[in-house]
Amino acid sequence: MRISQLSAESGVPIPTIKFYLREGLLPQGEQTSATRAEYDQSHLRRLRLIRALLEVGRLPVATIRKIIEAVQDEETDIHDMLGTAHYALSPAPEPAPDDADWRDAREMVDHLVADLDWDRVQPDAPTRDELAQTLVTLKHLGMPVTRDELLPYAKAADTLVREHDIRKIPLDGPRDTAVEALVICQVLYGKAFDAMRRLAQESESARHFGFRPSDDCAGVTPRKGPEA
Amino acid sequence: MRISQLSAESGVPIPTIKFYLREGLLPQGEQTSATRAEYDQSHLRRLRLIRALLEVGRLPVATIRKIIEAVQDEETDIHDMLGTAHYALSPAPEPAPDDADWRDAREMVDHLVADLDWDRVQPDAPTRDELAQTLVTLKHLGMPVTRDELLPYAKAADTLVREHDIRKIPLDGPRDTAVEALVICQVLYGKAFDAMRRLAQESESARHFGFRPSDDCAGVTPRKGPEA
Repeated sequence: MRISQLSAESGVPIPTIKFYLREGLLPQGEQTSATRAEYDQSHLRRLRLIRALLEVGRLPVATIRKIIEAVQDEETDIHDMLGTAHYALSPAPEPAPDDADWRDAREMVDHLVADLDWDRVQPDAPTRDELAQTLVTLKHLGMPVTRDELLPYAKAADTLVREHDIRKIPLDGPRDTAVEALVICQVLYGKAFDAMRRLAQESESARHFGFRPSDDCAGVTPRKGPEA
Repeated sequence: MRISQLSAESGVPIPTIKFYLREGLLPQGEQTSATRAEYDQSHLRRLRLIRALLEVGRLPVATIRKIIEAVQDEETDIHDMLGTAHYALSPAPEPAPDDADWRDAREMVDHLVADLDWDRVQPDAPTRDELAQTLVTLKHLGMPVTRDELLPYAKAADTLVREHDIRKIPLDGPRDTAVEALVICQVLYGKAFDAMRRLAQESESARHFGFRPSDDCAGVTPRKGPEA
């Protein structure tokens, strides 16, 4: 297909497609004349992946380029390729402070990882630091968390991932679609879970305390949250 | 205590405290002379609440003012007060489009709410729209979700909220601290859960596929996520 049709089918404007071509995110089409190139289904799939990384994952173009290099390089096995995408989606952790609260929290995370049999998680995975940082923040805000309090949340996360998340990654199709599914699943199921937690909280507040959101609440303009 | 001590104990700079006083977020101290006012523990608690709403909840000042009005107004019962804070923390939903995908998704959400016995959730709660919107996005991205697929996530959210979240709100103390705990619990436990889900995903990827994040991943700079 020509670039105009690629644009129509993908919904991505032609100037944006040309930008992706220049940046090397999208492979060049097959040149059929001096002014004309042909594109195929692989270009459509790649455009879907780029949009998922940009709009769902909200990743910067430089990070997307690294993921796409992993997708394109057939030497990278699918597991390392998914790992590259997975780490790219994690928020950058704050630099770890060297204080007792932080060391305690980091130690609790390491124990939790062992308790849950998550021992294949790399010892220096940034996600460990990220969780430790959240525990330190909770402590500083006067709501310290014990390992026993954290455990049911960790077990719920573990069950959802093992029994459900992992089935949503198609490993037998094109490499683009596996990475696309991983990004979409991680970001959007996270968003859906957060909304369901708030639904459960509203219901449980009502059940416990007889609270019903009053008309007054209509006066509170909910913030415009970061979309993800 | 004087304003300088209030600043030292709270860690909030004096000009910021004066801004909160002018904005009516913090009640005036007791004027003991023309140039001197005295503050007490209630001011310290209120400063903690304001910082939690601003820095953890990332709410705009106008929204914080509405929550503080509910906290201050002893006529508002504690349940409506918590409801005001709860709704303020929800991201604003996109305007609901009038199309078939959206209606299907919204209907699935209503069925889910009924299945989970969350029937005390208001019929027009923005959280219902928010979840429906996420389901529509998943469908448009080629990963449609069935009610059966959503159910285990909803059940996990329900159990965590009923058995754990709800116990973290102290209802027998000052009103400020109950709202503060609700904000901190909703935002930071959400963040912690998300990190644990990513830990479980890394572990499960490794278990299933033999994936270990390779040294190459060090080249991927994780994005700077929005702090919450």
